[in-house]
Amino acid sequence: MARINEHYAKLPASYLFPEIGRRVRAYQAAHPDAKVIRLGIGDVTEPLAPAIVEAMHAAVDEMARRETFRGYGPEQGYDFLIEAIRANDFTARGVAIDADEIFVSDGSKCDSGNVQEIFAHAARIAVADPVYIDSNVMAGRTGPIGADGRYAGLTYLVGNEANGFQPDPPAEPVDVVYLCSPNNPTGTVATRAQLERWVQWARANRAVLLFDAAYEGYIADPALPHSIYEIEGARECALELRSFSKRAGFTGVRCAFLVVPKPVTGVGPDGVPVSLNALWSRRHSTKFNGTSYVVQRAAAAAYSPAGLEQTRGQIAFYMENARLMREGLVAAGFTVFGGVHAPYLWLRTRDGASSWEFFDRLLAEVQVVGTPGVGFGPAGEGYFRMSAFNSRANIEEAIARIRRAFGR
Amino acid sequence: MARINEHYAKLPASYLFPEIGRRVRAYQAAHPDAKVIRLGIGDVTEPLAPAIVEAMHAAVDEMARRETFRGYGPEQGYDFLIEAIRANDFTARGVAIDADEIFVSDGSKCDSGNVQEIFAHAARIAVADPVYIDSNVMAGRTGPIGADGRYAGLTYLVGNEANGFQPDPPAEPVDVVYLCSPNNPTGTVATRAQLERWVQWARANRAVLLFDAAYEGYIADPALPHSIYEIEGARECALELRSFSKRAGFTGVRCAFLVVPKPVTGVGPDGVPVSLNALWSRRHSTKFNGTSYVVQRAAAAAYSPAGLEQTRGQIAFYMENARLMREGLVAAGFTVFGGVHAPYLWLRTRDGASSWEFFDRLLAEVQVVGTPGVGFGPAGEGYFRMSAFNSRANIEEAIARIRRAFGR
Repeated sequence: MARINEHYAKLPASYLFPEIGRRVRAYQAAHPDAKVIRLGIGDVTEPLAPAIVEAMHAAVDEMARRETFRGYGPEQGYDFLIEAIRANDFTARGVAIDADEIFVSDGSKCDSGNVQEIFAHAARIAVADPVYIDSNVMAGRTGPIGADGRYAGLTYLVGNEANGFQPDPPAEPVDVVYLCSPNNPTGTVATRAQLERWVQWARANRAVLLFDAAYEGYIADPALPHSIYEIEGARECALELRSFSKRAGFTGVRCAFLVVPKPVTGVGPDGVPVSLNALWSRRHSTKFNGTSYVVQRAAAAAYSPAGLEQTRGQIAFYMENARLMREGLVAAGFTVFGGVHAPYLWLRTRDGASSWEFFDRLLAEVQVVGTPGVGFGPAGEGYFRMSAFNSRANIEEAIARIRRAFGR
Repeated sequence: MARINEHYAKLPASYLFPEIGRRVRAYQAAHPDAKVIRLGIGDVTEPLAPAIVEAMHAAVDEMARRETFRGYGPEQGYDFLIEAIRANDFTARGVAIDADEIFVSDGSKCDSGNVQEIFAHAARIAVADPVYIDSNVMAGRTGPIGADGRYAGLTYLVGNEANGFQPDPPAEPVDVVYLCSPNNPTGTVATRAQLERWVQWARANRAVLLFDAAYEGYIADPALPHSIYEIEGARECALELRSFSKRAGFTGVRCAFLVVPKPVTGVGPDGVPVSLNALWSRRHSTKFNGTSYVVQRAAAAAYSPAGLEQTRGQIAFYMENARLMREGLVAAGFTVFGGVHAPYLWLRTRDGASSWEFFDRLLAEVQVVGTPGVGFGPAGEGYFRMSAFNSRANIEEAIARIRRAFGR
C-alpha cells in the first residue's frame, strides 16, 4: 500500500505565484481591454547577449558532428565553465576556490531545495522571514503551520524596518541557516560587517550558512562583498548559491552553481566531522547527470570580455528601471526599501492595507501586478515587492499610473 | 551544530563508474600505447540528428530577439513538447494520457531519484536486483548494507537465468516497486503477460509501480508494449519514466519526462487516498524551474517526421552493433542475454570468474572495457554488461579481439 509523504499536507492549498496568476486572469477576463503591466514574478525581459547566442550556435554545431559530439559530461560541470567561474567570480575578487568545490547545476531553485538532503532529518533550519520555505516543509523538517502563518520547528529570522531587513543570528541553536543577499524579496543588501557577524556566529556555533548570492551581479557599491568567501573564515562554514538567471538572463536557459568548500564540515551521529563537499559530490553525481552542454557553453560565454560587457549592460538597464521606480514611488509618498543593489523594490503598503489588499487595489486601480509581501512569509505582511525586470516603456507607464492614483 | 545525513555513510566508499574509470586510467598509465575500447558506461556516440540541430539553432535565434525571447517557462514543460509526446508516444499506441499528466524534466536520473520524495519516509521499496539503488539509501529508506551486499529494509526482486531476468512480484507487502523494461543492465524485456501480472499485483496490493521505459525506442518486436499504459489498469497504479537520452542521443542535451496519471493514488496517515499527480505537481513546481527552452525545442524536433526518421536510423545503427556483438560473443562460446530489444548485452563471465575478475581480465587481455554486473547489485555477480553504443569499427574490433582471446 503506497503510503505518501504526509508533510505535503502541511502546505496551504494554494501558493504564491499561481494565486497571483489566478487573480490576474480573473481581472483580465472581466476587463478584456485593460493593459496589465506585470512587475510580479521577477523574470528577465532582455534577450540573450550576442556573445552568448554565438557560443550556443557554436555548441549546437559541435553536437552535430561525430568528432565533436558530447554525450554525458562530468556531473560537476565542464572544466571550461568551472575555470571561467573561478577566475571571474572568485580569483578576481581575491577569493581562492578550488575547481572541485564548484558544482554546476540547472538552477538555484534545484540547488537550494536539494542541498538540505545532505543534512540530518532532525537538523534545525533557520530561514529569513520573509522568504519562501516550502521545500523544507515538504522534506518534513517542520511541524504544522500555525495560526500566525509560521511552521513549528523552524527558526524564523525576522527582517523588519528596524533592522533594515537584515536580521541578526538566532539566539537558539540551529544547524543550517539560509541567507540571501542581495535579498529577494526585500532588495536590501548585507554589509561586510553584517556578513562578518554571521560568519563569526556560524563558526562559534558550528552551524552552516547557505548563502544565496543569485543577485550579486546587481551590487553597485564596490565596497560591498559579492561572495560570502570575501569574509575571513567563511570557507569553514558557508556554502554559496550562484545563478546565471538574473546575472546573464538565463531564466529560460537554466544554469547555476553551488560552491561547497572542502573545509566546511558537519557532524555525524558519532560526533566526528564530515566534509560536506564529499557528501554533496556524492549527491550530485548520484541524482544529477550534468547540465546541458550547450547551456554550459552559454554560461562560459557570459564570462568572455564581450559577454561580460553585454551582460553588465543588461544589468545597468534593469537598475536604471529600479532607480526610476524608486524615485517615482518615493515621489508618490511611498516608503521604499531596496532597489539600489538589487532589481527588487520592497514598499510599505498604503493606509495599513494588507499585502493582498494592496495587490488587489493596485491591480484594480492602475492595472499593475506586484507580489504580496506576505506570500514570502508572515514578516512580509503589509509590504509589497515590485520587480525592475521590464521594458523601459512599461516601467515608466506603471510608475506614471501609480503616481496619478496614489500621489500625495 | 550542523548534523549531517547519516545515511550517506551506509554507501560503500567507491561506486561503480568512478571505480571503472580508476582502473582504466591505471591500466592506460601502465600501457600508454594500448588502444582501449570502452563499452562500459553506455553513452551514445552518434551526433544529434539534423532535424534536432536545426530546431536548436532556431530556438537560440528566438532567445536572441526581445520579441521572441523566453524567460521562465512552465515548470511542467511547454505545451508544444507535451503535445508532441502525447501524440507520438501515447495516442499513436492507443493510450490516452492527459497533458497535465506529463512532467518534462532534465533527465530520468533526476526523476527516478526525486520521485521517491512524494512517498512516506517509512514506505517499503522494492527494486530489481541487479539495479542501481543508491538514491534510496541516501534518503534513509534502508538499513545498513549486509555482508551479502544487500541493504536491510529493502525488498530485492532477483532477476536470474531461471526467470529470464524478469522477477515476479514480491510476496511481502511493499509500497513502491521500481521496474525497468527494456532492462538496464540485463538488456532483457518484459512481455505483455509479465507486465499484466505486475499491474494486477499492484492494483490488488494498492502498490505503485515506477516503470522506467528509457529504452522503449529500442524494442524491435511490434507486439511488445512500449508503455506500461498499454496494460489495462496501469493508469490506476503506475508512473512511467521516459527519456530522450538514448532514444534521440540526448545524454549531453538533457531531457526526460515523468508520467503521473491522475487516477494513481497513495494513502495518507488517515488512510484517505491522495492523488500522486497533485503531489508530484507540487514537488516539481517547488523544486524545479523548468527544462531549458532550447532543449525542449530539441526534444520536440525528435518527433517531427524528419526527426523520427533520423533518430530511428540511429537506433537501427546501434542495434546492428548489438546484433554483431551478440553473434560474436555467442560464437566465442559465451552465454549472452539481452541485446535484441535493448542496446545492452548481459553475459555470463567465463570460468566462474567474478564480475570484477572478468572486468580486469578483459581490460588486460583485449583492452575492452565493460561494466561488472555486481556493480548493479548482488544478483549481478558473475555477469557483465556490454553496451552497443560505439562506432561500427570499434564494435567489430572489440568482438574480433574477444573472439581471438576467448574463442572456443
